[in-house]
Amino acid sequence: MEAKSSTDLLRRVKSVNGHMRAVERMIEEDAYCIDVIKQIQAVQAALNKISVQILDGHLHSCVVTAVNSDDARERERVLGEIAEVFEAATKV
Amino acid sequence: MEAKSSTDLLRRVKSVNGHMRAVERMIEEDAYCIDVIKQIQAVQAALNKISVQILDGHLHSCVVTAVNSDDARERERVLGEIAEVFEAATKV
Amino acid sequence: MEAKSSTDLLRRVKSVNGHMRAVERMIEEDAYCIDVIKQIQAVQAALNKISVQILDGHLHSCVVTAVNSDDARERERVLGEIAEVFEAATKV
Amino acid sequence: MEAKSSTDLLRRVKSVNGHMRAVERMIEEDAYCIDVIKQIQAVQAALNKISVQILDGHLHSCVVTAVNSDDARERERVLGEIAEVFEAATKV
Repeated sequence: MEAKSSTDLLRRVKSVNGHMRAVERMIEEDAYCIDVIKQIQAVQAALNKISVQILDGHLHSCVVTAVNSDDARERERVLGEIAEVFEAATKV
Repeated sequence: MEAKSSTDLLRRVKSVNGHMRAVERMIEEDAYCIDVIKQIQAVQAALNKISVQILDGHLHSCVVTAVNSDDARERERVLGEIAEVFEAATKV
Repeated sequence: MEAKSSTDLLRRVKSVNGHMRAVERMIEEDAYCIDVIKQIQAVQAALNKISVQILDGHLHSCVVTAVNSDDARERERVLGEIAEVFEAATKV
Repeated sequence: MEAKSSTDLLRRVKSVNGHMRAVERMIEEDAYCIDVIKQIQAVQAALNKISVQILDGHLHSCVVTAVNSDDARERERVLGEIAEVFEAATKV
């Protein structure tokens, strides 16, 4: 990952972690169920954006390198991983 | 929320928060992108289970109370919230 | 389901089916992969809206009736179904 | 797309279309709401598998070609599309 996008990512993940600590407190304090679910759904939307940003960086670095390499097995592995996380993304 | 399920929920949320701190460290240490995405997807699957557990408790407590009450506006509000979180669930 | 919302639902489902026949043709005619995926994703977004509309009607009819009834088993069954489709919604 | 996988894809899409016609009939015949929602969710799971299969074929054909080409703009376009459908997949 490049330095700049890595800093931005870290900031986003720290923000998610702040929101997740809030979820923990909400459950400890017996908050209204729907408010907790909405907070969790907001966290999941933020995590989706983080995953997209990471994948975008990955496509433009590792994937380009692997596809350009002469190592067919490595190329296959890297392309298979993209299909794998895409499949998981359709389920979470 | 009932005491027992609340304890179980809290345990699950603490576990998610542990995994999210691991995601933070992975990004700080410049871990392999696909490993970070997979970790995030595992967190999202755990969050889905937590939301389902919270909704299940909510349906059997607040929703039953509201539907049985004579307050039509309150009943409408509570049923509308279920539709709302269901709609959001199809998007995250 | 009430007559009016049922007509609207049917119209939406027929529209989805029209788009799915288009997907079938796109594959027969060897269309560009990404265009097919985007068309499928548009269908899925439309199906999400249809599910939300059906659930909303269900909450205001069957769920209210079941929760108000004296039949505890029936009430349990109906509330359990809501949790079940919510859980599935977090996965598709 | 290669001939063999295209035949398999077409078979899957035709199967989805058969299930969607069943959904249409269910709504016309005023079937139980939850049964309709479950049928729609089954269709969405099938559509997810179809999208994954199409993306997998795309990665091993167009993406490899574009990444290996000297055309930086074309490479950028193809990688951007992958990120785009991944983003949409996290939302439907």
